[in-house]
Amino acid sequence: MNIVIERPPRGIMISTWRMSYQGLTEAGKLLVSGSTLPEAILHSVKSVEDNEKYVSVGYGGLPNREGEVELDAAYMDGNTLEVGAVMAVKQIKNPIEVAYDLSHKKRSSVLVGTGAEMYARQRGFAFKNMLTESSFQRYLKERTLDKDEEKRTAYEGHDTVCVIGRSGEHMACGVSTSGLYMKHPGRIGDSPLIGSGFYADSSAGAAAATGVGEDIMKGCLSFAITEKIREGVAVQEACEQCLLQHLRRLETLGYGNGGMSVIAMDKEGNTGAATTLSAFPFVISDGKECKIYIASGNQENGEHKIFIPDSQWLEECSADWIFMN
Amino acid sequence: MNIVIERPPRGIMISTWRMSYQGLTEAGKLLVSGSTLPEAILHSVKSVEDNEKYVSVGYGGLPNREGEVELDAAYMDGNTLEVGAVMAVKQIKNPIEVAYDLSHKKRSSVLVGTGAEMYARQRGFAFKNMLTESSFQRYLKERTLDKDEEKRTAYEGHDTVCVIGRSGEHMACGVSTSGLYMKHPGRIGDSPLIGSGFYADSSAGAAAATGVGEDIMKGCLSFAITEKIREGVAVQEACEQCLLQHLRRLETLGYGNGGMSVIAMDKEGNTGAATTLSAFPFVISDGKECKIYIASGNQENGEHKIFIPDSQWLEECSADWIFMN
Repeated sequence: MNIVIERPPRGIMISTWRMSYQGLTEAGKLLVSGSTLPEAILHSVKSVEDNEKYVSVGYGGLPNREGEVELDAAYMDGNTLEVGAVMAVKQIKNPIEVAYDLSHKKRSSVLVGTGAEMYARQRGFAFKNMLTESSFQRYLKERTLDKDEEKRTAYEGHDTVCVIGRSGEHMACGVSTSGLYMKHPGRIGDSPLIGSGFYADSSAGAAAATGVGEDIMKGCLSFAITEKIREGVAVQEACEQCLLQHLRRLETLGYGNGGMSVIAMDKEGNTGAATTLSAFPFVISDGKECKIYIASGNQENGEHKIFIPDSQWLEECSADWIFMN
Repeated sequence: MNIVIERPPRGIMISTWRMSYQGLTEAGKLLVSGSTLPEAILHSVKSVEDNEKYVSVGYGGLPNREGEVELDAAYMDGNTLEVGAVMAVKQIKNPIEVAYDLSHKKRSSVLVGTGAEMYARQRGFAFKNMLTESSFQRYLKERTLDKDEEKRTAYEGHDTVCVIGRSGEHMACGVSTSGLYMKHPGRIGDSPLIGSGFYADSSAGAAAATGVGEDIMKGCLSFAITEKIREGVAVQEACEQCLLQHLRRLETLGYGNGGMSVIAMDKEGNTGAATTLSAFPFVISDGKECKIYIASGNQENGEHKIFIPDSQWLEECSADWIFMN
């Protein structure tokens, strides 16, 4: 007689950038100990929002050109296709919580600016001055440089935290960002836009993007990748194909490569990642282990190496943002 | 010897709702007389924005639940993939003009709320009190009814004007709306969201949507239709397939049919339209003639009849919105 020991339905989660490591480690454990998928995703995103060290998300985020921290966040449930998002909100401590709350509404579930702040206030969400002294000093210095706004890349202090999770057959994703550094007030990138910055459908898969939002949205990258997975393309190839195809299109049209990176998961929990950068760190937790990976792409054929960076690689890697984020 | 008389490259344009008829008639003539595609699209959208009779777009638009008219608009160029959009802006006379202006920017090309208004003011765009006495009176009456916000359909005074145009091999589209009647302040539907409310790519086609934005965005309908056209599916079938598939999915998830309609054009200038309503009026101009059509769908198999309504049909049609819009 065989004794079948049922493994607890541990979840699998994938997230963007090294900054998400701590939160994803904790979130993976939460799933194992019985927390729901939304709880795990919210925990991992909030962990980045609350950490002032990370200057591209939440508290301590880099301000717009008027010196105000404006935040975007979105949440999507892959079982119900429920979507909630807030855009360009000020002084909301955890924008991802408001986005998640909004996702339960059938109407007025995507709110921008002061209307979104009004909603958050009426629903009792925490408010806070999100501009830290350190981000303000960096802003004052940046302001003197008189850079060309039209040429800013994503890596002058802009990385979105994106988290995709799966628990049982339930998939969902959450994203949060303070947007492009020194942006115009009210500027929105791809992050809070469904299909561009994120998409989740438990019957196919989920994807999310980080990088120059104005470029990512032109190709609705997250929806495109999810649909490619739905067609039966393996998740890693789906990421590579969609990103390379879009990059080539943008190059043909004369756009520079300001940096775009994507993560994705199919409905079986297989993961993928791709980037137009030389190296893109992302994190995977299977509930037992949580590890940082590097995706490094061949810009000719779009194929990627995915590897766990050893200490030598990290030492030799000269890119500041690898360490910062 | 054959004498070949070259026909001037007259454009073709398609737009949503009867309210777009006058503007599209004029825009078609503009294209013939040498105006550019953006000029023609802006003219047709502005014609609806400026007409206070149309309570779902621009001047005289129905207000949000606080009595404020908040407007969304977007413009996309199919040659360059340039995108500009404004969301939840107040008192801007022609939001489509600001969206078009923003589309020329490589960064900060999508702006929301007060940030977008600041941009419009600094760029010299006209401001105006967009709330008419008639819309305000309607608001005061509606406010007493205490309707369930979560069940509002698109046809309690919400239709987006969407215009897709092609001139030579150049495609583009523009959309404008005052959004869902009695919406929460700051609420955004599908209209200003790339891929959901609109998409244009001259190398494939273009599509745009009108109806309950919260439902349309869950399927990124405009991008989905454009990609279906790119795969080689005929434009009418692309509209029907994508809309039916999405409606079925929403029904399975327990969503009601709040109303969704789409228009599309392929890169050869062939047009299509589909709806989940009993009848959906749209307009086509080939520069010589401009006609109102009705799309009427079979809710079982998704196939549509497209016909020119005669006076008898219009008399027998009891739906108010057919006449209003």
